[in-house]
Amino acid sequence: MANPLFSDRNVDFLLYEVLHLEGLLALPAFSEHSRETCDLFLQSCRKLAREVLFPSYRRLDAEPPELREGAVHVHPLLREVLPRMVELGIVNASRPTSVGGQQLPMTVASFASAYLMAGNLSAYGYLGLTSGAARLLESFGSAALKEQFMDRMYSGEWTGTMALTEPQAGSSLSDVSTRATPRDGGYYAIQGSKIFISGGDHDLTENVVHLTLARIEGAPAGIKGVSLFAIPKKRWQDGALRDNDVRVAGLIHKIGWRGLPSLALNFGEDGECRGWLVGEAHRGIYYMFQMMNEARLMVGWNGIATASAAYFEACEYAAERPQGRPLSAKDPTTPQVPIIEHADVRRMLLRQKAIVEGGTALLATTARYYDLAEHAPDAAQRAEAKMLLELLTPVAKTFPAERGFEANTLAVQVHGGYGYSSEYLPEAWLRDQKLNSLHEGTSGIQSLDLLGRKVIAGGGQAMALLQREIIATIRQARELGVNEDSTGRLEGALAALLSVTTHLALLGMRGQVEEMMRHSYDYLDLFSVVVIGWQWLAQAAAAQKGLREATSSSDFYQGKLCAAQYWLTTELPRVGYLAALCRTGEDSYARMQPSWF
Amino acid sequence: MANPLFSDRNVDFLLYEVLHLEGLLALPAFSEHSRETCDLFLQSCRKLAREVLFPSYRRLDAEPPELREGAVHVHPLLREVLPRMVELGIVNASRPTSVGGQQLPMTVASFASAYLMAGNLSAYGYLGLTSGAARLLESFGSAALKEQFMDRMYSGEWTGTMALTEPQAGSSLSDVSTRATPRDGGYYAIQGSKIFISGGDHDLTENVVHLTLARIEGAPAGIKGVSLFAIPKKRWQDGALRDNDVRVAGLIHKIGWRGLPSLALNFGEDGECRGWLVGEAHRGIYYMFQMMNEARLMVGWNGIATASAAYFEACEYAAERPQGRPLSAKDPTTPQVPIIEHADVRRMLLRQKAIVEGGTALLATTARYYDLAEHAPDAAQRAEAKMLLELLTPVAKTFPAERGFEANTLAVQVHGGYGYSSEYLPEAWLRDQKLNSLHEGTSGIQSLDLLGRKVIAGGGQAMALLQREIIATIRQARELGVNEDSTGRLEGALAALLSVTTHLALLGMRGQVEEMMRHSYDYLDLFSVVVIGWQWLAQAAAAQKGLREATSSSDFYQGKLCAAQYWLTTELPRVGYLAALCRTGEDSYARMQPSWF
Repeated sequence: MANPLFSDRNVDFLLYEVLHLEGLLALPAFSEHSRETCDLFLQSCRKLAREVLFPSYRRLDAEPPELREGAVHVHPLLREVLPRMVELGIVNASRPTSVGGQQLPMTVASFASAYLMAGNLSAYGYLGLTSGAARLLESFGSAALKEQFMDRMYSGEWTGTMALTEPQAGSSLSDVSTRATPRDGGYYAIQGSKIFISGGDHDLTENVVHLTLARIEGAPAGIKGVSLFAIPKKRWQDGALRDNDVRVAGLIHKIGWRGLPSLALNFGEDGECRGWLVGEAHRGIYYMFQMMNEARLMVGWNGIATASAAYFEACEYAAERPQGRPLSAKDPTTPQVPIIEHADVRRMLLRQKAIVEGGTALLATTARYYDLAEHAPDAAQRAEAKMLLELLTPVAKTFPAERGFEANTLAVQVHGGYGYSSEYLPEAWLRDQKLNSLHEGTSGIQSLDLLGRKVIAGGGQAMALLQREIIATIRQARELGVNEDSTGRLEGALAALLSVTTHLALLGMRGQVEEMMRHSYDYLDLFSVVVIGWQWLAQAAAAQKGLREATSSSDFYQGKLCAAQYWLTTELPRVGYLAALCRTGEDSYARMQPSWF
Repeated sequence: MANPLFSDRNVDFLLYEVLHLEGLLALPAFSEHSRETCDLFLQSCRKLAREVLFPSYRRLDAEPPELREGAVHVHPLLREVLPRMVELGIVNASRPTSVGGQQLPMTVASFASAYLMAGNLSAYGYLGLTSGAARLLESFGSAALKEQFMDRMYSGEWTGTMALTEPQAGSSLSDVSTRATPRDGGYYAIQGSKIFISGGDHDLTENVVHLTLARIEGAPAGIKGVSLFAIPKKRWQDGALRDNDVRVAGLIHKIGWRGLPSLALNFGEDGECRGWLVGEAHRGIYYMFQMMNEARLMVGWNGIATASAAYFEACEYAAERPQGRPLSAKDPTTPQVPIIEHADVRRMLLRQKAIVEGGTALLATTARYYDLAEHAPDAAQRAEAKMLLELLTPVAKTFPAERGFEANTLAVQVHGGYGYSSEYLPEAWLRDQKLNSLHEGTSGIQSLDLLGRKVIAGGGQAMALLQREIIATIRQARELGVNEDSTGRLEGALAALLSVTTHLALLGMRGQVEEMMRHSYDYLDLFSVVVIGWQWLAQAAAAQKGLREATSSSDFYQGKLCAAQYWLTTELPRVGYLAALCRTGEDSYARMQPSWF
């Protein structure tokens, strides 16, 4: 059995039995679409993922890009693979037809992309980044910039990047120091260095457009003096594309995502680099956060896709590898059993399933809020969906990154000694996964975003909305006959989350910011456990319904109920422990002095 | 500052302030030694580790062994490095002078090896394996085998391996199928295949001796029909070393430990492979377990050494890398602060410290029991120490492997985007570390060993001894003025551990083996949290004493107290949650059917 990357049955279940996609498709924005068109798009993408992308994965990992004479040369296989993805319209699948898109719900487009990610994270990466960069121009760029850059990016003719990080500043964007000096002719002279620019140079397309943060001369210090520029690798001059003085300063030797180069770039070494301001001056961070929020959701999908591919690989291995005998049957003359028969192996597989499918459900739910935030009929509904989307983004980014890494580790572990060999795939996915807790805001930064910004947004309105959503799920689960133990556990966990949130918010209001934020990472963990519990209860409810109505095998629904039980009875109890840490503000690492290490 | 690999101050603290090495040195077996000779040996090893082994680490990782024409060629640097280690007498440092050893306490020899492991895991690996293999011959081999093989292994002239795993059997040793047929002349003809044989072939020494499990023709099925053989790569014939028909069938491409080859070997492809029986027929597993138990402790040290090197790398990076500002000081014109100033970074560092130094203390304590089991003056004391040693072995193996991997992951995380680059070392240690949960018995197997064998040993006697030891530490901590919160927490956790152990043992006595063992992994986790808590309380007690008597900087002791607080207040509370899982026997993965995944 070939690795399916994602389970089609599970995608259908989430779209139609849990999230009721029909409701979204009834919105005017999606009037061109139906279940059939959505399924057709999904079908094309999963086919490409399985038949073209996944088979190229190993070679891209083994033969990373090379830097020769200042230019990056990527694996030639990408020249075959990339156009196939472009053909499907994946770059702007969810964008409006007015910019050449298919105007599919993000909920559907996300799943379509997820198959491609699971098949080949690096190959998809070029287009994922291009999509995000083009979207920035769509939202904030002038008509000229759209015509010059966005159209070519959406069409896949050129690719795009986001160029935020600088060597001396890292995650601290207020310390961006790349300079932009206005020149006659409507452009700026750019000078500065960026690092970790994924897809920052390659030989796949003629041009690369860097959506870059820089500081206009004389701008205020800090975040409020940062502007956004479009800086192409080559610019039009006299009707031809000419070098724009963007130099590759170094190729980073990454441990994963080895098909996609990560670069250090220098802008304007020769004083000849031109950039075009996107939107208004000094609003760069505000604009970039749109891209970053979408990028964070994409990272979440990357994480889940990577964990999902490894999970299926581990399932297959465990079902086929005979080794040992049941604890109660030690007769050495009996045949060995497949390792999936051992409880501890099933523990590792069920934990992977709970993480992968719980995370997938959360990301799909978040994508649905994205669609509602854009297209719900009334403004209040859109505003609510937007608050939920923003609240859930740091969780939807970090849970897949952190727990996905754990799932990938378990996939290696299930493979035993073979898992330690690069002749098997799980170790490669483990390396790929590690990036997701580091880029687009580390997990620590996500936890500051969640607790310091998102949960207190609108004076607690976002949390109230989440509470409403979770309670609705609990009520529905009860109606559909999910056992009281499960519903009661989630109810209790939600109460604990809300109570500790109030406690921490009060600390913040009293100005005790360090105390409030001290256990932000534990808070994010706690929040994730509850939110994934919510997603599992929603799936249990749908499975309960499915089970009653099932005419053929009930295996799928039984598996859902079992995984839901696993999460609700083995993970949710961690809530008490985590809440206590946040509430008491345990102060060991607050007290710890640098010289004591 | 160069990476110290281990903290010398911490080693001194554990040896002299926590474990009171003087007590061991007073035993007759160690009459040749004093604090001075021990320190001298440690000093030579740490110097070699820092000045020779560590500087060669990166090259060994980047240029792994190659298989050419059936022979393995390792990195030429090893030809310089290995003899330097041999010169120090590391192979048999703890063995008696009668076999050429230095008869140092294992407690000291372990620390000496740990520096070498932290400096270069692969390079040390050749000798660690040789030491274990020679030790088997010392314990169970005939005088002829000792002369022929053991002496040359202890002297470093030849190396040794342990050849257990077979492709079709993996961890299931009762399915070993390599055949041994008695021949005239006192040897056996060997035929079979082994896999994952570390150091199974190389061009560093003239010969390699494989301590191999095989089944004598007509032997009973299962574990009780497995015998132990010494099978050299080359055998003496007519006064010269001749090929012994041990063929390299494949070189495994490992993701870490890349300086040490892991091989698939075929014995007797041409019917010319000879092996010599070690000890009695059919006792192979019993003998091998001696080696395996020592190997498991060595794996524990490998894990801690790998986590320790990464921890110090992360500390240094965090102290030197400026980025961002405190939460309460957002003025962007102020200079950035080193990231160690951020609470969440200190959390990651303190967690690493707690894991590394807690694990080190446990391994050192275990080594002390090893010394007492061999050399304590009266038999009852030796028997007690042996029970404690055996009880703690699966924990001392698994805690460093599993939580060490977490610590290594945190070291990558502290490095941010740079951590994802192979230009920095943390990613390499992360890869190295992953092996430790897989080899010498996976973590799952360790958990079966702990719960299914060790804790019920002697009708619960081992647990009673552990209880006595922990209570003694609690009493001492109280006397030395450790706060009641810490001592009380450990007391409570111990009670919870004992209570759940009794519950599970009763299930076993009733024949409900599957129910008893279902949460063996959670039980191992629970056990580890308590045992490491014990080690932290012991360190806190010694630190409290040190603090009172300190004449210079108290930083070291403050750090110990802070890390102890961290473990006792943030990790120990997990005990309740884990104990509940074990006790209730939560049945999701027991119920889960293969077809439901």
